[in-house]
Amino acid sequence: MDNEMQVLEIPYGMRDFLPIEAAEKRTIEEKLASLYMAWGYDEVVTPTIEYLDNLVQGSRHSIETHLFKLFDRKNNTLALRHEMTTPIARLSASRLQDSPLPLKLSYSSNVFRYEEMQAGRQCEFHQSGVELMGTTAAGADAEIIALAAKGIVDSGITTFTICLGQVDFATGLMEQFQLSSGEQRALQIALEQHDFVQFESRINLLSLTGSAKETLRQIPLLCGGEDVLEKAYTLAISEKSKRALDNLRAIYRLLKAYKADQYVRFDLGIIRDFSYYTGMVFEIYTDGLGFPLAGGGRYDHLLSDFGNPCPATGFAIGIERILLAITRQHLARPETPKDVYVGFANGAEEAAIVKAGRLRMEGKVTELAPASSTREEAESLRKKKGYTDLVYLA
Amino acid sequence: MDNEMQVLEIPYGMRDFLPIEAAEKRTIEEKLASLYMAWGYDEVVTPTIEYLDNLVQGSRHSIETHLFKLFDRKNNTLALRHEMTTPIARLSASRLQDSPLPLKLSYSSNVFRYEEMQAGRQCEFHQSGVELMGTTAAGADAEIIALAAKGIVDSGITTFTICLGQVDFATGLMEQFQLSSGEQRALQIALEQHDFVQFESRINLLSLTGSAKETLRQIPLLCGGEDVLEKAYTLAISEKSKRALDNLRAIYRLLKAYKADQYVRFDLGIIRDFSYYTGMVFEIYTDGLGFPLAGGGRYDHLLSDFGNPCPATGFAIGIERILLAITRQHLARPETPKDVYVGFANGAEEAAIVKAGRLRMEGKVTELAPASSTREEAESLRKKKGYTDLVYLA
Repeated sequence: MDNEMQVLEIPYGMRDFLPIEAAEKRTIEEKLASLYMAWGYDEVVTPTIEYLDNLVQGSRHSIETHLFKLFDRKNNTLALRHEMTTPIARLSASRLQDSPLPLKLSYSSNVFRYEEMQAGRQCEFHQSGVELMGTTAAGADAEIIALAAKGIVDSGITTFTICLGQVDFATGLMEQFQLSSGEQRALQIALEQHDFVQFESRINLLSLTGSAKETLRQIPLLCGGEDVLEKAYTLAISEKSKRALDNLRAIYRLLKAYKADQYVRFDLGIIRDFSYYTGMVFEIYTDGLGFPLAGGGRYDHLLSDFGNPCPATGFAIGIERILLAITRQHLARPETPKDVYVGFANGAEEAAIVKAGRLRMEGKVTELAPASSTREEAESLRKKKGYTDLVYLA
Repeated sequence: MDNEMQVLEIPYGMRDFLPIEAAEKRTIEEKLASLYMAWGYDEVVTPTIEYLDNLVQGSRHSIETHLFKLFDRKNNTLALRHEMTTPIARLSASRLQDSPLPLKLSYSSNVFRYEEMQAGRQCEFHQSGVELMGTTAAGADAEIIALAAKGIVDSGITTFTICLGQVDFATGLMEQFQLSSGEQRALQIALEQHDFVQFESRINLLSLTGSAKETLRQIPLLCGGEDVLEKAYTLAISEKSKRALDNLRAIYRLLKAYKADQYVRFDLGIIRDFSYYTGMVFEIYTDGLGFPLAGGGRYDHLLSDFGNPCPATGFAIGIERILLAITRQHLARPETPKDVYVGFANGAEEAAIVKAGRLRMEGKVTELAPASSTREEAESLRKKKGYTDLVYLA
């Protein structure tokens, strides 16, 4: 055996979860999985690796540069999935095509994106979420938002805000002023990136009347309570923008029945990262994190890219971000119980095995010493390992 | 939007888990995670992607051709992990180096290997297992075997056999006859591959006495109950082989206290796939599967490859193999409850939301219709979706 010291590092953007972190991760993922099941969502698991062409369906063109690519033995280009909505769209357009609609699916998966690293952004991270397919009803969007909010609460986050928008509102305004698709795209990119300086300067380049420009400038400023919708109606001349506001109003009315309206703040400048959103969009923020804990929205065209036209809405919660928020906000962390450490003297090993088995049957988390020791040594290990009680068999 | 029909396929060796399969997978993985926790094992999560050089530590040379490789932006060679023991060895030699020994860790992870596909062998598959580090005691090996057996039972498999061997027995015999390391390796490979024709013809090539050859020929035939150990003692002249048998006898004595001896069948020809095993090795078989449900053993040198000399023992259970065995043996599959489908007439949506919320609080799995419908339509969907009860609000 070669004893030379080896590199103990892990690649850029990767992380290990040590015991306490891994226990927290499992607790939260299991709570979310139980929640989705209680609401009638069925979990699915898709492969980590997909054909690149399938993954870039419906995503903005630039996503490809963020993918981890590899090649199969026939030189097909594969990639590690960067999100779960597209694989689930693929699955529902193929093996789940004959399921009764609406189809309610959930997942808990790791996904991969090359990103500049910062707290809360790794290249491999974990998402938990749902997709509701087969209906355009506002009730479906309200359920998605209410379920995301319940998921955040069940994860242990006590204060958060749901920023709620509708992509058709801004698109409707841009169409109303007859912007070219290039001009629209430039404004959308600035909104996506929350780059309001860029947004402003793009507007200034347009050959529009001053009042039209002023209307567009209002988009990212339309943030707040229900009165924002009233103000937005005064700007929306086009049918598309009006329908977007009607849709938000209908969703909001239902969120009151869910008691989720308390978390909502309208934000008509929200566009989200993916160009596939076609209606309601939302992001959930909490104190001390500069990025959303969760996000989602309606995407009515993605499934038709897979040959199965079908409206859909859904969300994803970022597990690492929940863990980071819990730490930063000093919230209660799920405890891993450590009940009994069983040590034994020479000759008492069989008795110790039987005793440890009984303690586990009683529901006690019980660690058994692998070999005999003195009582003092056993007590010292009990303490170091954090067990509450020592049982010593002599 | 482009409506052309897209490829709906997934790459070679990959699979989707549809709802019933995914629910079974989650149930079994959660049961195993709870079991490991009850025995004092702490879960860890390591990245899917590691440096290639770290993953091939201690593994047989040929493993590299089975890895999914990719490159980072600095052109370092990375790979998707092909098993979990090596990443956990890396972790315990780095960030967990100061934890009190013995260190008991568990995992539930997907791993990746290019393999010829067949039932129970995918290129991406899921393993659940534990590693016990920091002790050479037979008690540690017995705990590992007993815990694996309990894991198989908790997964729902009722009949199975633990084939138990010790690599030093065969190695001791080969050393006793002064075989060169090349000759030893050739015999070990034949044993690993269960290729007894090859094993026989390799023995025939050796320049040994007839009785020595006859002794070597016995290795794969030493299978069965406790009497196998007695027979093996008569062949073992070298100290190494004798110590291997003493070790198996000590482990077996403790397995009686665990009541796991009932599953054990000695098999002194077991070598296992990885060249890193250094002591006890075992594989768990069940009817109708031509490959083990689980396997493990002692590997005392792997951690020193990471600069942290430390004996260790552990096992991995193959989740897909458990699922396949449950299906093939027509065993009870975990049920996903579907309690109440809530439909509503026009105007009753808020009332339906409140009702669904109450039913979920009572612990009922409840799906809410996304939009109003007639009672007949709601009843029809309840039936199609498999819910027990319909609640209809008019």
